Amino acid sequence: TDDSCVLETRVLVLNTGGTIGMKMHLVDSQDVLVPEPNALFKYLRTLPILHDAEYAKKTCLYDYYNPDDTLVLPLSKENKRIIYTILEYKPLLDSSNMTTDDWAKIGKDIEANYENYDGFVILHGTDTMAYTASALSFMCEHLGKPVILTGSQVPIYEMKNDGRDNLLGALVIAGQYCIPEVCLYFYNKLYRGNRVTKVDAGSYNAYSSPNLPPLATTEVDIAINWDTVWRANSTSKFKVSTELNRNVGLLRLFPGITSETVRAFLQGPIEGVVLESYGSGNAPDNRPDLIEELKKAIASGIIIMNCTQCLKGTVSASYNTGKVLLDAGLIAGSDMTPEAALSKLSYVLAKKNMNIEGKKKLMGENLRGEMSIDLGATRLCMNDS
Amino acid sequence: TDDSCVLETRVLVLNTGGTIGMKMHLVDSQDVLVPEPNALFKYLRTLPILHDAEYAKKTCLYDYYNPDDTLVLPLSKENKRIIYTILEYKPLLDSSNMTTDDWAKIGKDIEANYENYDGFVILHGTDTMAYTASALSFMCEHLGKPVILTGSQVPIYEMKNDGRDNLLGALVIAGQYCIPEVCLYFYNKLYRGNRVTKVDAGSYNAYSSPNLPPLATTEVDIAINWDTVWRANSTSKFKVSTELNRNVGLLRLFPGITSETVRAFLQGPIEGVVLESYGSGNAPDNRPDLIEELKKAIASGIIIMNCTQCLKGTVSASYNTGKVLLDAGLIAGSDMTPEAALSKLSYVLAKKNMNIEGKKKLMGENLRGEMSIDLGATRLCMNDS
Amino acid sequence: TDDSCVLETRVLVLNTGGTIGMKMHLVDSQDVLVPEPNALFKYLRTLPILHDAEYAKKTCLYDYYNPDDTLVLPLSKENKRIIYTILEYKPLLDSSNMTTDDWAKIGKDIEANYENYDGFVILHGTDTMAYTASALSFMCEHLGKPVILTGSQVPIYEMKNDGRDNLLGALVIAGQYCIPEVCLYFYNKLYRGNRVTKVDAGSYNAYSSPNLPPLATTEVDIAINWDTVWRANSTSKFKVSTELNRNVGLLRLFPGITSETVRAFLQGPIEGVVLESYGSGNAPDNRPDLIEELKKAIASGIIIMNCTQCLKGTVSASYNTGKVLLDAGLIAGSDMTPEAALSKLSYVLAKKNMNIEGKKKLMGENLRGEMSIDLGATRLCMNDS
Amino acid sequence: TDDSCVLETRVLVLNTGGTIGMKMHLVDSQDVLVPEPNALFKYLRTLPILHDAEYAKKTCLYDYYNPDDTLVLPLSKENKRIIYTILEYKPLLDSSNMTTDDWAKIGKDIEANYENYDGFVILHGTDTMAYTASALSFMCEHLGKPVILTGSQVPIYEMKNDGRDNLLGALVIAGQYCIPEVCLYFYNKLYRGNRVTKVDAGSYNAYSSPNLPPLATTEVDIAINWDTVWRANSTSKFKVSTELNRNVGLLRLFPGITSETVRAFLQGPIEGVVLESYGSGNAPDNRPDLIEELKKAIASGIIIMNCTQCLKGTVSASYNTGKVLLDAGLIAGSDMTPEAALSKLSYVLAKKNMNIEGKKKLMGENLRGEMSIDLGATRLCMNDS
Repeated sequence: TDDSCVLETRVLVLNTGGTIGMKMHLVDSQDVLVPEPNALFKYLRTLPILHDAEYAKKTCLYDYYNPDDTLVLPLSKENKRIIYTILEYKPLLDSSNMTTDDWAKIGKDIEANYENYDGFVILHGTDTMAYTASALSFMCEHLGKPVILTGSQVPIYEMKNDGRDNLLGALVIAGQYCIPEVCLYFYNKLYRGNRVTKVDAGSYNAYSSPNLPPLATTEVDIAINWDTVWRANSTSKFKVSTELNRNVGLLRLFPGITSETVRAFLQGPIEGVVLESYGSGNAPDNRPDLIEELKKAIASGIIIMNCTQCLKGTVSASYNTGKVLLDAGLIAGSDMTPEAALSKLSYVLAKKNMNIEGKKKLMGENLRGEMSIDLGATRLCMNDS
Repeated sequence: TDDSCVLETRVLVLNTGGTIGMKMHLVDSQDVLVPEPNALFKYLRTLPILHDAEYAKKTCLYDYYNPDDTLVLPLSKENKRIIYTILEYKPLLDSSNMTTDDWAKIGKDIEANYENYDGFVILHGTDTMAYTASALSFMCEHLGKPVILTGSQVPIYEMKNDGRDNLLGALVIAGQYCIPEVCLYFYNKLYRGNRVTKVDAGSYNAYSSPNLPPLATTEVDIAINWDTVWRANSTSKFKVSTELNRNVGLLRLFPGITSETVRAFLQGPIEGVVLESYGSGNAPDNRPDLIEELKKAIASGIIIMNCTQCLKGTVSASYNTGKVLLDAGLIAGSDMTPEAALSKLSYVLAKKNMNIEGKKKLMGENLRGEMSIDLGATRLCMNDS
Repeated sequence: TDDSCVLETRVLVLNTGGTIGMKMHLVDSQDVLVPEPNALFKYLRTLPILHDAEYAKKTCLYDYYNPDDTLVLPLSKENKRIIYTILEYKPLLDSSNMTTDDWAKIGKDIEANYENYDGFVILHGTDTMAYTASALSFMCEHLGKPVILTGSQVPIYEMKNDGRDNLLGALVIAGQYCIPEVCLYFYNKLYRGNRVTKVDAGSYNAYSSPNLPPLATTEVDIAINWDTVWRANSTSKFKVSTELNRNVGLLRLFPGITSETVRAFLQGPIEGVVLESYGSGNAPDNRPDLIEELKKAIASGIIIMNCTQCLKGTVSASYNTGKVLLDAGLIAGSDMTPEAALSKLSYVLAKKNMNIEGKKKLMGENLRGEMSIDLGATRLCMNDS
Repeated sequence: TDDSCVLETRVLVLNTGGTIGMKMHLVDSQDVLVPEPNALFKYLRTLPILHDAEYAKKTCLYDYYNPDDTLVLPLSKENKRIIYTILEYKPLLDSSNMTTDDWAKIGKDIEANYENYDGFVILHGTDTMAYTASALSFMCEHLGKPVILTGSQVPIYEMKNDGRDNLLGALVIAGQYCIPEVCLYFYNKLYRGNRVTKVDAGSYNAYSSPNLPPLATTEVDIAINWDTVWRANSTSKFKVSTELNRNVGLLRLFPGITSETVRAFLQGPIEGVVLESYGSGNAPDNRPDLIEELKKAIASGIIIMNCTQCLKGTVSASYNTGKVLLDAGLIAGSDMTPEAALSKLSYVLAKKNMNIEGKKKLMGENLRGEMSIDLGATRLCMNDS
């Protein structure tokens, strides 16, 4: 192979923490996994499958790049060299500890480095990865490059783990394919970030995208489902919106729920609610007390989205019990995941210079491919159905 | 076939409502599905696959049974005749409208008719069927006969539907097999009732039992997984406990959640909470404000269960962020579904003559096969793991 | 519903036999399933879900149709009435007994009745249904109407069975949708006929279409994958070609196979062979004895197709052991099933006025959507990949 | 971690060839994959995840082991050190080229090294791995240690591949668990070797064990299904029987098959045949010409096994067309894969000092867990059903 014709591409890896970079430590005489700072880069540098030291030397890579944060993958089948730079967050976070401020920081880091890289990989704990992926999908406006979250169920430092393959796969896609979306990559599948939910706490195959097929599979070949890849019809400049409204919450309907519980929940400082209704978006129509609480909340300016508590499916209004929420003023959430609905609310509610009607309209529109049915406009994405 | 040696068994069908018995009606100039009273029995009587009129006549069935509510299935492969009596609820309910009072009514009806039937089938809407199945599993103490919930995604009156097969399958199991559990039967699979959750709003295969394999499949043959069938080590008399405490609720963690939201939720009249934590039971350990709210609630006598928001998996404490909830006094919910955890709380909190410690202990024990790991006692069910 | 605006469509049902119409009989003091003649029509007439006697009476249906072979379905959701006529074969066949003559008879019956019906349903045993579906797909030239094979794993006369739903679903599609293909319908899925193979002898879900997704699913809604439906770019008149060459056979490679076995197999009157090779179309390249036998056969005018013995996948030539068969003169069979490959050989070899080279070219072309990669021409079907 | 209490175990890796150790080479101006000799050990030595050089140095490993063929894994979670020695075959084989002689060589190598190792891993191409696994399962008599075949779909030398994880997983099981079977390990699942078949030529998840669940899964945890692990009730000494009869073959029934084809196939030197019948073991009962050929062959001393051509399922005799093969003298093959049936025939036919009746009896018995129903003896394995 003649290195002179090899194309080099650059990927920025934001290492926010998560299981992938954890080690077992004794805490209060119990073994628990804790993020290990300043270890990942050094470890990856020793793994030939994730760093080609010989190539780095031969091409004098470190004349151009920082030897303390940059590595280079072996030559890919597509004849490219992916040079990746790791930016490690301090402190590293267990993803349970991720906050909206952390989302903002990630967004700003992507924005600040946007022009210098071909793609971005975000290492992240699995617990809230689907939330972060959803939030970033809304925060990243007019995105034109791949942003891929990944992580692992088992630390990369253990002998048998899923971290190496997940990192490698995410780098290979971020560095070689123009998929201008916030994605999540796990166990050889690439998903749209705002479509996934963590469904299995104990398997490598931890995520599901119940209402949209994967964007790509990467086994013997990399097979990209180009018809499904989202393309915003926009030529505007990339911009990250870091304003997020945290006064949102999720309320799950269940048969015995009391109106007192609902009232208490809605009387906080809350401004946006995801109501997890039954089946195709149903709620009791024999509970005027409940509906009254929802109506009062809506009248007071709270936006309430109607989403199903089923993993798969979409809200509709073919039952009388489905009409009741529509009539009460809730906005149909189509087939959004709870993660997407909550973070979309945070994003939309934080918009300035937009009145409540404008925000409600936005909530019903398909902004980033997060829903299959666009209720506020014509259908943009033929392939989501 | 010689009818003289045919064994007759009896099944009571409680028709509580649901899609299976709905018809399309115009409501406010829109077509919606509405329960149709006094129609199911008459319709089933005309279907030879669900009623053998000839056998009824030949054996003078209606000399012994009420011709206005009782039907008889064709001869089964196992050479039995299942005679079933339909008790229709008034009004029929869309399952979104089901309340804890309705659960109590179902329970009492089973109790009142317990000695006269070999098994029970409950026709029910799909939306809250998993909740009712879970609740009944706890309410039915020392159950020795099959109680099987079923329903359909498409009304039985439509040409193509899943109602006929679901009803038939539930009758065949309830009338022929000694599976002394509250079960849910759907699309040729029999599940433990407190293990299922509705996962698909638009498919015949609507339910999943993520942490326990089906009890039986009924395709070419009826294959029962006898090792998994729950057998209480009890010879006490069957009894239905209809006391339920409705002051329970579900709180889903998400990254931006505010302590104000949590406080508002916990300040209602609430007595039991299912906290849907991340992954293997994790919560932020960098949010003392949040943890403080949970601790205050527990100190005030609220029981909080730690359950995962993942469809599949169990809570453990291998992350530091997992220890935080344990340390705060939450009870580990193992791999219970939200439906099981909520209804178990309702059941346990309603117990009289039991102090809070006793109730907490009960919540951590495996009462009806609803969890794989019994945290308060030795493991009873080897097959749940 | 106003019957005056209801559209009536007509479907011809060819009842060739199979489990769907069998009953248990004592044969040599053992219970075995045997086809039951003159029973299906009479039985269906008694089932309200498969015959609406009231409608027939009200519309004087039998003034126009033969009351001894014609039935009418209840009104469909799409507001159509499907009138179907059953033509029962004598004798009824267990599908194990199906021959190429029977395929010819089915083909001729479709041809003879082509103009009088909107669609065709073929009741057939499950054992060889994939073979018949494949053969008919080739025999039916310029097909413009749906031809749908179905059957069941359990006889329709048994209490619990899959026959009613399979028949009903096939009728509903054949009578209402313009899918101009030979299809196979089973357990709520519609498949392209030459893409299926029977994969499970003991489940309702008996068929798989490993290399092409289903054409439709029929659960809560009928969802047709129109992009996948095959459309021949032809306006020629429909015609059934009943000439078939039976001198074909299948040879499965395995590690110890001797050249004597291969020679014996190829020395019969055989003219076309499906060689089931390994993986992506591989064969030993260290066995000149074997390759020699294949070359001799090809030299003598036998056509040998290279198909994989894997359920899923396609032949390629990325291994040296894959080149060996290409070099020996075998024709790459892409991702054809054994059933499709055998019946395509039978069809192509029977062509008159075509020399061996023309036949070989045809074998490598995608004639009816049976293969994903068209090796002899430009790719016709974008959706097959 | 205190190395003094670490247990070292030893695994022998027989590298027979296959994709895992291939590199792309130009052959006749075409890129094809070819086995690369003398490369694997050197490459693995550079991968820290497959060799812990530091540990080797610190413990003076190479004072005891050959530095040219032995490596040591990082410390396992179970606190063991797996030291593995690679024995590379010359020449390395594409698995398409594997012969019964190669099986014998593998068997003898295991026998020769049996006492010196705790377990065995066999690197093998995927194309015939299921055949080799089946054959070795019969050849290894009274096996008391794990023998695990593995390989990969993508060469280990490529950047993204499944070879590293497959090798690592196989080593971890072979070195740590007492599973005294010939197994096949692929994509985080461990299967019984004589139960698998290659079902997908283009996916990492290439194998299926259609009639027996996996023996283990190795994702976040290693979960072994101990109830399914085969335990021969024998204390005899381990012994490898390398005698194999190659005069066996597979004949697939299809509707148009001619008796001439069957006769030609059976007139070779063939001594054992796997007849791939339809569905649950059916064949035409209206084809006396066919049945006559089978009977003649059986009369002449050929053993013919009746196996289904369905991926999943077992032969039975509930159809008249099923009885016909039983009556003709075929032996029911239960739910054996074609790979298991062919290699079992090779093994049994080679037995000396056993008459044809004894061999037929053996063919119907469950020798190594290869079939679910033992037709010649009482059922040994309750978990196979």
